[in-house]
Formats: sequence, structure tokens, C-alpha cells
Amino acid sequence: MRKVGVADTTFARVDMARYAIRALEEQGTGFRIVRRTVPGTKDLPVACRRLFREDHVDLCLALGMPGPAELDRSSAQVASMGLMMAGVLESKPILECFVHEGEANGPAELAELARRRAEEHAVNAYALLFRPRDLARHAGEGLRQGFADAGPVRRTH
Amino acid sequence: MRKVGVADTTFARVDMARYAIRALEEQGTGFRIVRRTVPGTKDLPVACRRLFREDHVDLCLALGMPGPAELDRSSAQVASMGLMMAGVLESKPILECFVHEGEANGPAELAELARRRAEEHAVNAYALLFRPRDLARHAGEGLRQGFADAGPVRRTH
Amino acid sequence: MRKVGVADTTFARVDMARYAIRALEEQGTGFRIVRRTVPGTKDLPVACRRLFREDHVDLCLALGMPGPAELDRSSAQVASMGLMMAGVLESKPILECFVHEGEANGPAELAELARRRAEEHAVNAYALLFRPRDLARHAGEGLRQGFADAGPVRRTH
Amino acid sequence: MRKVGVADTTFARVDMARYAIRALEEQGTGFRIVRRTVPGTKDLPVACRRLFREDHVDLCLALGMPGPAELDRSSAQVASMGLMMAGVLESKPILECFVHEGEANGPAELAELARRRAEEHAVNAYALLFRPRDLARHAGEGLRQGFADAGPVRRTH
Amino acid sequence: MRKVGVADTTFARVDMARYAIRALEEQGTGFRIVRRTVPGTKDLPVACRRLFREDHVDLCLALGMPGPAELDRSSAQVASMGLMMAGVLESKPILECFVHEGEANGPAELAELARRRAEEHAVNAYALLFRPRDLARHAGEGLRQGFADAGPVRRTH
Repeated sequence: MRKVGVADTTFARVDMARYAIRALEEQGTGFRIVRRTVPGTKDLPVACRRLFREDHVDLCLALGMPGPAELDRSSAQVASMGLMMAGVLESKPILECFVHEGEANGPAELAELARRRAEEHAVNAYALLFRPRDLARHAGEGLRQGFADAGPVRRTH
Repeated sequence: MRKVGVADTTFARVDMARYAIRALEEQGTGFRIVRRTVPGTKDLPVACRRLFREDHVDLCLALGMPGPAELDRSSAQVASMGLMMAGVLESKPILECFVHEGEANGPAELAELARRRAEEHAVNAYALLFRPRDLARHAGEGLRQGFADAGPVRRTH
Repeated sequence: MRKVGVADTTFARVDMARYAIRALEEQGTGFRIVRRTVPGTKDLPVACRRLFREDHVDLCLALGMPGPAELDRSSAQVASMGLMMAGVLESKPILECFVHEGEANGPAELAELARRRAEEHAVNAYALLFRPRDLARHAGEGLRQGFADAGPVRRTH
Repeated sequence: MRKVGVADTTFARVDMARYAIRALEEQGTGFRIVRRTVPGTKDLPVACRRLFREDHVDLCLALGMPGPAELDRSSAQVASMGLMMAGVLESKPILECFVHEGEANGPAELAELARRRAEEHAVNAYALLFRPRDLARHAGEGLRQGFADAGPVRRTH
Repeated sequence: MRKVGVADTTFARVDMARYAIRALEEQGTGFRIVRRTVPGTKDLPVACRRLFREDHVDLCLALGMPGPAELDRSSAQVASMGLMMAGVLESKPILECFVHEGEANGPAELAELARRRAEEHAVNAYALLFRPRDLARHAGEGLRQGFADAGPVRRTH
């Protein structure tokens, strides 16, 4: 039985974990989900490390929604570096799923973007654990999470 | 008996630890507080690591107030990265509670912001240790510390 | 028998791994290739570390194509730092082969740049493993990957 | 007998270590000073780590004076991150005492700033080792090193 | 018998290692040089770590020449951070000797700057290993590598 860790925040303005978990469960079975909610984006790296060390998950989804101010951007950068450290030290994948408020025009689009991105990262999480060949088959195809795929620059035959 | 570490500085212009400790004590019992005061913001990460290693605390509150100059901003960024390293290496939470002078208009607002943020991070610290489900219940609700909550983008039913 | 790890993404818009692997195979024999495809650029460092730890490769090629937005640039910087951490911790080479969309004028040039850069990094990977003196012979010669060589500033006799 | 490490550079334009050491000695007795001079600001982190590991010091003062160009600022940032890594890994304090040329108007002010900052960090170093309560008593009082104290925003009774 | 590691790149446009090695040999005897040439600036940190771990050198010279584009500057920053990590983890000095193309006016000046900087860092490397007091004697004197010394701000008697 594999385990997927889901780390999310009270800072985010959308309950992205709810969408991620639903999408994970729609992918298949054979795994359990462990969730940890922390206050802010910068608390996610330690939450992930604890999910690995204490809850023995095989992979983490780190869901965050940094604010729009410049200070929020520096915070998001530090949080990203922390997720990187945690993942590299554990040698286990942490899929960073951040939605920056500035990426969307208005609240409806933001909520929709957050939902889709959480779902699509969840699908990737499932693939990494159970169907790595699905990823290999789409290498270099310009896939995106939340927005439409950019697509390949030129089909490679 | 759990232990909460409080690290603060002589550089900050408000005694944020006083507010944080009072708020912690108002939350409940079952923990002891260990405080370490260091000179500057960049000294907080080592203070936190020592609180973990020597004082065996379960969580740290790192209270700082970086100055308004551009050099202060780079310093704050390095301090944040240091807190991240310390937390990830220990696999224990460090709640970074920084107030940047530029966030407030004038001294009265700055003092008030510092007090509220320290108190609200202290409440989060208590929740992380004793009531993690309180955090989970507020996932994605756009909670803020010091300023009014941003709130959820769209209620999720 | 040496092993070369190839890490690539579904985010990239060109299947750079295909070119890198072909170029590697044209260099000679005596090695096996292990490939891991992950979703995004920031997932490459953990992929590389797993290639070292689980697949026992001697060197990794990390192929990525960060997007053109400013957020993509910060992501690329974090991914680069992660590759650096992974390489330094393992004490094994990770050749970062990133193509930034802004480096090329239009899709045809981008595809061509990605192909050439992947091939030329693959040649370097082979040299690092099997012919380190080839590199030493070209020290300080202003070699580039993907674009024309800059050349030496002044021939050194 | 405690030990204080002093790391300084030939790059700095003021012999800050001389002032720091004199100020340390004026604080009291009960400690020995070990000094290591390195070429540049970026060499300070390794110098500090060696002071901890080979000379068994309890705390380091890292004295540097980054140049005024933009490249010097990036260098200073990397040096700061290195000091942070070294301190966090050792779990021992490193007081970073950097003077940036741009902080002062003209050479006389620069020399004076460097002297005062070195002295005041030395006083903090002594306090950290021998009188931690002195620091706690001044928590949140807006103390500065080199310039006049900013002072508390509002007296806290 | 001490050992000096020299790491350089095929990316640089001047064979800086040639100058560094000659300058080292002019300083004296009692050491052996081990050289590793890698493709790019970001490959230097792993090269240095391997020089420490596999070749057992006591100190590394890391010679690089980042390009003039903005992407090159971010790369140089990541490379610097990697050298810092490698040095701090090993607790051994890595002298970073980078020449940025923008530092010189035209190719002749660039070649000359690269030669002088490589030579002067080599002299520092020798001093760090064999004559640390030479460095201590010049503490705070505003020494530079490649350009004229900035000199002390004010003589300290």
C-alpha cells in the first residue's frame, strides 16, 4: 500500500487539497492519503518532511497560494527552496502546486485555476507512483497544470 | 510536557515575544516556553536550531522585524532561508513571524501590526502542537496574521 | 559498465531526451542509459537524486525547458539550485541542460536550439565519463552548447 | 575557557578585527580569541567552519566589507548564505558583521562605521556567550550596530 | 605533501588554469596540483567536491568566466552558491575566481584581467596553505585580485 502526503495551508484562499484528494481518488486505488494542514506557504517544507519521516508517505503534494504583494513573492521563493531541500534530502518527490494570485484575472478565474491545477498535479502524483511510463510517453509535449497545455514546439516523430 | 521555543531579537523595535508568550499562555496549558534573544534577524536560525538541540523544544516561533532599507530586505531573505534550513534539517516547525517596517503606515500601526501578528502566530503554534485539526478545518480560508483575513475566494461547500 | 541518467519533463516543448540519447549512443559504447521523465523542471533534482541512489548512475543529464514568464524564471532558478544541491550532496556530475524559451526567436529556432543543446551536453556527458582529457584539451576555449562557440578571447600558445 | 573565533579578510578596507578584538577584551576575561584571515568575503564561511571544527571556538565573528559594485552585492548575498549554512550546520552562532561601502558617505565615515560596527558586534558576541540575559533585557528595543539605535517603536511597559 | 585542486571550464574564454598553475609553481614547492576541467561554470562545485573526496586536495581554485547575458548572471549566482555548499560541507577552502565578461572593456582587457585574477588567486591559495600569516598581515588592506588594490580606507597604526 503506497501513501501520498498532501500538505496545504490556511493561508490559501481555495481549499485546493479537497480537489487534489478527489482527483487522486478518481485515478485508482492502492494508496492511502495523509493530510497535514499548516498555517502558511513557508510551513509546507517541514510539513512535507514530517509526512515523509513520520507518516512514511512516498510522495508529497504541496499546495499553496502565495499572496500578490512583493513580500509574498520572496516568501514563495523561500518556500520553493525549502520544498526543494526537503525533497532532495529525502530523495522523494514533492510536487509543488502553487497558484499565485496574479496568475488569474479576478476571483472566479483564480478559484478555477486553483481547482484545475490541484487536480492536474494530483494526476501527475498518481502517474509518478503508479504509471511512470505515462509521463515518459508525454515527454517534451509542453504539458501544463491549470492552464491549457502549451503543446510541443514541433511534433517529434 | 511539550516545549515551545521563542526566538527574538534586540534589533526588532517591538517586544514581540512578550505578546507571543502571553497569547500562547492564553491558549491553554501542557507546555513550557523557552526563550532565546539574539542580536539580529540573521541570528534567529541558529537560535532556533539550538532551541531544538539543546532545549529540546517541539516547535519554534521566530520573531523578527527587518528594517526598511534594501540591505535589510536581502538580510531578511537570508534569514528566511536560514530558518527554512534549520526547520527542514530538524524536521520540526519554525513559524517565521517577521514584520517588515514598510508594511505599516507609521509607528502606531507598526506596533499594532507587530502585536497582532505575534499573537496570531502564537495561536497557530499552539494549534500545530495541540489541535492540528483546527488548522485542517480552516484549510484554504485565506487566513492572515496581523492583517485582516483575506478570506476564501469562493466558499467551498 | 557505466550508467548515464537522463531526467526530462513533460513540461518541455521539445523531446530533448530523444536527441540526447541518440547523441550519447553515437559517442561510443560501454554504458547504459536510464531515463526518468517527471512533470516539471522543479521535479528534476529529485529525479536525478533517485537516478543516483536507486539506479546507480554515474552522471545525470537534466533536460528542461522553463517557460517565458517571470514566474518561470524564478522556478528555473530554484530548479537550478536543486540540481546543484543534488549534485554536490552526491558528489556526482549533473549536467544542467535548460533551454529558456526567450533564448530563441520563434518555434523553429527553439526546436533547433533544444536539439543542438541536448546533443552537445550529451557529448560533454560522454567526455566527462570516458574522455576527461578531451575536456582538458579545450579548457578556456569558450565552448558553448546549442549556440556557436564564443571561442577563446586570445589564443593561448 | 571559552573560545571566540574571529574571521576577517584582506579584501576589507578597514582592519575591523583589530577593533573587534580590542572590544572583546574590554568586555571581560574567561575566553581566548582565535583569528583566521582569508582573502575575500566569500571565504569567510569556510573560515568560520574551520574555526568551529579545528579550533573548537564557541562562536564566530565574521567581519567583511563588500565592495560597492553590483557584482559585490551578489557576492555578499552568497557569502551571507554561506555563513548561514555554516552556522546552522554547526548549530553555533556566527555574528555576521558586514559593512557595505555604500552605507557611508566618504572614507572617514566608512572607517568610523566599520570600527563601531565591529566593536558593537563584539559586545554582542560577549553577551551571547557570557551574559545572554543582557540580550533578553533589550529584546525589541531597536538596537543597531554601527549606526545609532533605532529605538523601540513604542515603549512596552 | 599538500595538494591543490584546480577546477576550470571549457566555457571560459581564457585558459585561466594555465596562469594559475604557473603562479602556484612560482610560489614554492611542497605541493602537487590536480586539475579537473568541466564543461560549464555550474559544473565547478561538483568538480571541487570530487577533487576533495577522490583526489584528497587540501584546497580548490575554481576558475570560471560567466557570459555577459542576464541568464549567465543567474547561472553564475547558482554556481557560486554551489561552490559555497561544497566548501562548507567539506570544511575546506574553495577560492572562487570568476571573471565576468562585463568587468572588462574589450577582449584584450578581458584576457589580461583573467590572467591577473587567476595569478593573484593562486598566490592567495598558496598563502592559505603555507603562509596564513601573510594574509593576517594584510587584513583590512583592501586587496583585490585582477584589478588594482582598493587599499585601506585609513591606515590603522
